[in-house]
Amino acid sequence: MSGTSSLIRLSVDMMGGDQGIEVTAPGLLDALSRYPDLICHAVGDPEQLHDALSPSAPADRLIVVPSSEVVEMDEPPASALRFKKDSSMRVALNQLSEGAVSGCVSAGNTGALMATARFVLKTLPGIDRPAIIAVLPRPAGHVHMLDLGANVGSPPEVLFQFGLMGSSLVRTLEGTDAPTVGLLNVGSEEIKGSDTIKTASDMLKNSDLNYVGYVEGDDIFNGDVDLIVCDGFEGNIALKTSEGLAQMLTKVIREEFTKSVFSKLAALIAKPVLRAFQARIDHRRYNGAMLLGLRGVVIKSHGGADQTSFSNAIGAARLAASKNLISQIESDLEATLALAD
Amino acid sequence: MSGTSSLIRLSVDMMGGDQGIEVTAPGLLDALSRYPDLICHAVGDPEQLHDALSPSAPADRLIVVPSSEVVEMDEPPASALRFKKDSSMRVALNQLSEGAVSGCVSAGNTGALMATARFVLKTLPGIDRPAIIAVLPRPAGHVHMLDLGANVGSPPEVLFQFGLMGSSLVRTLEGTDAPTVGLLNVGSEEIKGSDTIKTASDMLKNSDLNYVGYVEGDDIFNGDVDLIVCDGFEGNIALKTSEGLAQMLTKVIREEFTKSVFSKLAALIAKPVLRAFQARIDHRRYNGAMLLGLRGVVIKSHGGADQTSFSNAIGAARLAASKNLISQIESDLEATLALAD
Repeated sequence: MSGTSSLIRLSVDMMGGDQGIEVTAPGLLDALSRYPDLICHAVGDPEQLHDALSPSAPADRLIVVPSSEVVEMDEPPASALRFKKDSSMRVALNQLSEGAVSGCVSAGNTGALMATARFVLKTLPGIDRPAIIAVLPRPAGHVHMLDLGANVGSPPEVLFQFGLMGSSLVRTLEGTDAPTVGLLNVGSEEIKGSDTIKTASDMLKNSDLNYVGYVEGDDIFNGDVDLIVCDGFEGNIALKTSEGLAQMLTKVIREEFTKSVFSKLAALIAKPVLRAFQARIDHRRYNGAMLLGLRGVVIKSHGGADQTSFSNAIGAARLAASKNLISQIESDLEATLALAD
Repeated sequence: MSGTSSLIRLSVDMMGGDQGIEVTAPGLLDALSRYPDLICHAVGDPEQLHDALSPSAPADRLIVVPSSEVVEMDEPPASALRFKKDSSMRVALNQLSEGAVSGCVSAGNTGALMATARFVLKTLPGIDRPAIIAVLPRPAGHVHMLDLGANVGSPPEVLFQFGLMGSSLVRTLEGTDAPTVGLLNVGSEEIKGSDTIKTASDMLKNSDLNYVGYVEGDDIFNGDVDLIVCDGFEGNIALKTSEGLAQMLTKVIREEFTKSVFSKLAALIAKPVLRAFQARIDHRRYNGAMLLGLRGVVIKSHGGADQTSFSNAIGAARLAASKNLISQIESDLEATLALAD
């Protein structure tokens, strides 16, 4: 896909996620074969990694970095941060902070990853709190949205910073000149806007951003702004609600197509169409949320991701690293916030 | 459906909604024919109503109540409240407060309906703010959820009151003995729970309610609690997000089924199955949100509802009125809050 000859180095937490190496190893191998410019620092238990990777990995593009501990999926972030200094997650992030790699991928627990990444990497100048940003599908194209769950009760300045970082990301990764930015709100006239939302809206209005005003929940999947800004509480609820709805619809459509001999026949005939439908909305294509606002590219893969999803998360880190996303955001922030760094 | 011989009287705002009488009139006629125990006070412009209803309406079960004004769909609530004292919405609510009917239905603008209903009817003793409650579908069954957008920034006591009212409603309307109640929250350990959510959770825990703890966004459509409690901001965003996602999926599946000659053929064969699927998740079945916490049954139909949806909203009001919902809630509140009234 890339025409450049420069190589991209990423560190990958191989022990994270619901199934650990069982998924991360084939995912990593898939990514290495998809991206010839990719070099991976695979972090985890060296023996297990050798068994899972050596037979088929390209030896010149895979480095095993040993670590002795694993952050559990339900481990409190503070405990991971304090007691798991040799975890695969921590060591992968250390690789990034030491400059050995230009991006890091983990399917480990989100809270621990955020806390550790914040501690190891620090936030960018002008950014108070990192946010989780991800891509969500639309009938044509997609939308970027943040924060999806890192911060609860974000004050207006923080929502404004989300807008700045997010806009810079969309411009850098998508090449969109002046991405349109919407602020998530509720529609009813009577209650439109808490004070926080109103102040954030004013700050966005008075900035250089291409701010279009308020958007509502239905604009996420069915609207046309390039970037949606919201607090992590609402963002997380919107994301999880749509995951639940998609699961429900899948369940119901499967039930209907297996109800009778006729419906089974219909399913057989409609299969290619249903497959094409599924491929267009496949959440695995969109796997790989970014922890944005840190001094480094950190991609969080879904904990329950399969190997294709995990490979896509690695692809997302590769893209961000190859576009020098962090320096782009840094210089955009400097320009906007007139920071001395 | 009902074996009782007692009649239910409802007032219906015939001028509200995106299309007014064009939808409300056939919707009302449909409801009258579905429910032989129903008497409707149809409020609106008498001439237009006579034209639209008289030819086919059962004269003994339809009373036209004249009103000279209409609340616009984008009219600010304060303006509707102050200047539209003879609006179909206001007169329909007056009918309820005067005891002429035992329930009221409107497809008019939500903010104006909430403000007017609150002014005309007042809240129940022990209730600070009314909430919007609705039914959402699940693969098997459904869930009740409140608040869907009446209140932004609800304090813990108000969230607790939502739990009390909602639980009472589910018990009364569904016959569920001790409905399970969940509080909507985000999952990440690090940030779980703002102080408001934590305090509300403690209050629910220490009550008589069958409180099961926190639920997440994916539990709305795919979980198993009977009632979900949340602030109106999150509730509205969850609801609108799922509306948008459902619209997107419909659009994409339609595109895929019309892409080629083969897919058109597949669509033809799969049509009965897709129809059955659609019927199971048809949002029209679930039309009719209740403004809960008022001294009277007030049902809000979706502004863009078609006649079937509007008829369902009337059906929802009829059910609540026939079960004496308001007195049930009142006595439950009295018992729980130990109010003297």
